[in-house]
Parts: sequence; structure tokens; C-alpha cells
Amino acid sequence: MEIFILILEIIGTVAFAISGAITAIKKRMDIFGICVLGLTTATGGGIIRDLILGITPPSTFRDPVYIIVAISTSVVTFLPFVRRYFEKKHTLLELLLLVSDSAGLGIFTVVGAKIAVDAGFGDNGFLVVFVAVLTGVGGGVMRDVFAGDRPYIFVKHVYASASIAGALVCFLLFYLVPALPEYVSMLVGFVVVMTIRFLAARFRLNLPRP
Amino acid sequence: MEIFILILEIIGTVAFAISGAITAIKKRMDIFGICVLGLTTATGGGIIRDLILGITPPSTFRDPVYIIVAISTSVVTFLPFVRRYFEKKHTLLELLLLVSDSAGLGIFTVVGAKIAVDAGFGDNGFLVVFVAVLTGVGGGVMRDVFAGDRPYIFVKHVYASASIAGALVCFLLFYLVPALPEYVSMLVGFVVVMTIRFLAARFRLNLPRP
Amino acid sequence: MEIFILILEIIGTVAFAISGAITAIKKRMDIFGICVLGLTTATGGGIIRDLILGITPPSTFRDPVYIIVAISTSVVTFLPFVRRYFEKKHTLLELLLLVSDSAGLGIFTVVGAKIAVDAGFGDNGFLVVFVAVLTGVGGGVMRDVFAGDRPYIFVKHVYASASIAGALVCFLLFYLVPALPEYVSMLVGFVVVMTIRFLAARFRLNLPRP
Repeated sequence: MEIFILILEIIGTVAFAISGAITAIKKRMDIFGICVLGLTTATGGGIIRDLILGITPPSTFRDPVYIIVAISTSVVTFLPFVRRYFEKKHTLLELLLLVSDSAGLGIFTVVGAKIAVDAGFGDNGFLVVFVAVLTGVGGGVMRDVFAGDRPYIFVKHVYASASIAGALVCFLLFYLVPALPEYVSMLVGFVVVMTIRFLAARFRLNLPRP
Repeated sequence: MEIFILILEIIGTVAFAISGAITAIKKRMDIFGICVLGLTTATGGGIIRDLILGITPPSTFRDPVYIIVAISTSVVTFLPFVRRYFEKKHTLLELLLLVSDSAGLGIFTVVGAKIAVDAGFGDNGFLVVFVAVLTGVGGGVMRDVFAGDRPYIFVKHVYASASIAGALVCFLLFYLVPALPEYVSMLVGFVVVMTIRFLAARFRLNLPRP
Repeated sequence: MEIFILILEIIGTVAFAISGAITAIKKRMDIFGICVLGLTTATGGGIIRDLILGITPPSTFRDPVYIIVAISTSVVTFLPFVRRYFEKKHTLLELLLLVSDSAGLGIFTVVGAKIAVDAGFGDNGFLVVFVAVLTGVGGGVMRDVFAGDRPYIFVKHVYASASIAGALVCFLLFYLVPALPEYVSMLVGFVVVMTIRFLAARFRLNLPRP
């Protein structure tokens, strides 16, 4: 189970680091800014989660694997031939940004739910879902604030709704079907997040606006 | 006493949720952005307070009442006929924004002071006042950062001064007049905050500026 | 040793308060905004550091000396004849901003390393360096976010690199040369930060950018 979570977290870290690094490249930051923004996006959600749950120092600070993965990913994203490739294929870049951001959102949401349950709050569904959503969206909010954009969560598509739905499904499966292995519940929650985000992007779904 | 604090916190949550939701509507966010900004404004100060005092998970995460109140308030603020009513009465809208923001500031300031004292720091007036002010202004700062505005606290009127004065009065009454019931001290502190803010707005008081 | 750290922290607080206050003056904030931004810049890094390490309430909240120093410094920076003097000497102002920001960065970096070691994480070099850098850059990032600028760390010169190099040197001396008095290791780390920042500013060193 620990291995499973570690693998999930590493994929999520890669995904969010890509989305942070691409945002930084768009803003014409230098290589250091790109690494810092990639790192912030990839680790921000988990740090907030651990502070909320009282897990100090947060796991990001105890195990260098997350920071190494986040920075390596940012550097690769920066490499000239990688960038040049995507500059030609603009649609592909936008797709990559959507996929990486959605995958990061989905993974950190379900990992957040699992860690909240492990921290002993499994009977407080409200807390589990709240912490899960904050883990999922936290890194992206920090990315947008630091890049000087209005956070994505406030302006685009059904972003937080996807995270809430995934967290809720994941928690309900944990709680109501304890016989189900936890990784199955987490995968289902992840699929819910991805599906909602893709449907929203595909059909340009938006929520009512004044 | 607990009931008294709960009622105060709910009024403060409503007030700050209104101010967050109106800000979001002005920025043309969708219904989800409105709820998220209302929620952030209403709960941000209390979350920062609890993290500072080492109370984890923060109370906002343990009891769903705050999030339910904040989101319901945001949704009501969004309702077409409510918005249309205020669009016609622009002065009334500005007044509502001033009143809700001031009430939230006053309530969260005195509740912050009380919770810092309850957490065992009643003999450190400096800490009590600092935590109280951070509780009062924290939600509004997060609202403005997320909305892409320069935080209100840095640019307008005697905002933080009102919170500091109220926190100081509240703490001094706690400390010097222990015979006084705590809710009286809190009400006096609240009135101090409201009075200073209204006088400042009424007489366009401003502090010296280079 | 405690006296040494206290003196260092006070110098760092003065330096960062100056950089925060000058930023606020440039943005035409009023005297309160200037004090709040000076205070935020001076105390932000230390508060983040203590929350990460699980030291609650953070030391800034327990001892009023930091807040008194930060606010006094901000007020002095605001004084008309001080401002008028620097308005005439624009190069001197920019130099002062560079020196104060670099000194704050260097001091908070090495103090952050020392406090992480004292908190019992002396065998986890990764954590020590990470916490040290966050302590060094945290206040400046908060200053820039609140002032509505893109954080300095993302756009200018080798800012975070200087902090990382200083933190690394400081930690390696702590770890590999335990015979060396800790204040010597800290001074060496501080000199590394200052040297890198000044060389970068002098030779307009920049990192590659897409």
C-alpha cells in the first residue's frame, strides 16, 4: 500500500511539476524560476495538507524524493528541444497542460483523502473531503498566485467540483465498502476527477456566472 | 459561553462570506468561484489562527457548520433577484460591503482573542492581540490575493488599526477586569472595531501617505 | 549562542523591514500599509519556518521584540527627511534595497538552518537546507505577493540559488566539522549568500531563460 501511494504521489508530482514549469515558461521566467514554480506546484498541496493535519515537518521536507522528481521534471520541460517541439504543436501543449493538471488534481485528491483517514479522521467525512480537495487544489492555487494569474480554481470550468466529487466518491467507498481494497477506492475517485474535467473541457461546460 | 462564541462565529462567517461573494461577483467569477471565494474569506482567518496556536486540524475542518453557512450565504448572494436588487441600489451595495466586512473583522478579532486565551496564552498580551488581529484580517487578505487585488489592509482606511484597537481593548478587559464576564469584554472590543471603521469611512479618515 | 542568534535575527528583521517598507512606499501605501508590509516581510519567513517544524506558536508571536523592531524600522523608513534624502540619491536607494534584502536573505537562511538542527533534524541535511531556504525567501515572497508584484524569486538574478548555496555550506560545516563553533559555520554561510548575490548584481549574472 505504501508503495502504491508513493508511486501515485510521484506521478502526481511529475504532472503538477509539468504544469508549473509550463506556466513559468509562458511567463518567461528563467530556469530557476521554472524549477521553483514547478516545485511549488508539485509540493504545495501536500505541505498544506500535512500542516492542516498536524503532521510536522510535512513529508515533503522529510523525504527528498518529491523535490528531486519535481526539479528534474521542471528541468526536462525547460530543455530547448522539448520546448521547441511543443511550440510547433500548440494544441498538443494545451492538451498536455490539461492532462497533467487533471492527473495531478485527481491523484493528490485521493492521496489526501487516504492520508486524512490514516491520520485518524476516517469517521469525519467532512474533514476527509475538505482536506482531500485542499491537497488537490492547493499546489495549483499557489502556482497561479505566484505567477500573478487569478487562480484557475476561481475562473475556469468545473475545477474544484471535479476534486470534490472524486474526494466524496473515494471517501464513501472507504466508509461504506470497507471490504474493498483502499487502492480500488482511490482509483475510482481518481477516474471520477479525470472524467469530470475532460467532459467539462470537451463540451466547454461552465457553471452559471452573473 | 460556547453557544455565544458559536453564534458570533456564524454571524462573522455570514458577514465575511457576503464580502467574499460580492468581490467574486464584481470579478465576474462563476458560481463555483463565488462559493470558493466566499468560503475562503469566511474561514481563512480561523484556519490561520488555529495553525498559529497549534490547534490541528483547525476547527473549520472538524465542524461542517462553518462551511455550510459560508457556502449557503455565497449562493444566496449569487441569486439573480438578490443581485439585481443591489445592482439598482449601488450605494446600498457598498454600504452592505462595508458593514459585512466590518462586522466580520470585529467578530473574528474578538473570537481570536478569546481562543488564544483559552489555548493558555492569556498572560501574553502581545500574542493574544497578534493572533486576534491575524484572525480578523486573515480572511480578507486571502480574499484580495485570490481576487488579484492588492489586499485592502494595505491600501484603505484604518483597517488593521481598528482590529488592533479592538483586540487590545478586549484583552485589557480580560486581563485587568477578570470579574467582567468574557462576553461583555468581547462585545466591547467588537463595538470598538465597528466604531473606528465607521468613523473612518464616514469622515474619509486616512493615515498619512508619502 | 542564543544572544548571537538574537542579534542576527534583529539585524535580519531590520534589513527585511527596510526592504518591505521601501516596496510599500514605492506602491504609495499609507503609513499603516508600510508598517504591515515591513512587518510581514520581516516576520513571514520565521513564521513559515516554525509552522513547518511544528513549533507553535511561532517565536514571532511569543516575543514582541521582532514586531517592535520591524515596526520601528518601517516608521523610520517612512519619515519625510529619510525619504527625501533617498529620493535625491536614487542609486543609493537601490543599493540600500539590494543590501538590506541580501542581508536579510543571508541571515534568515543560516538562522533557519540552525533552528532546524536544534529542532532535532540535524541528520536530515535535505530538510535543514529546505527549511533554511524557505526561512530566507519566505518573507520576500509574501512581500511581493501582497504588493501585487510577481515574487522576486521567480524573476530576478540568482536569488534562491544564493540562499541554497549558503544553506548547504552552513549545513555541511555543521555536519562535517562539528568541532567548528556553530556561529562560524553560520557566518561562512551568510558570507556565501552575500557574495553570490553581489556578484550576480555586479555582473548582471542571470540564469538561462527560454
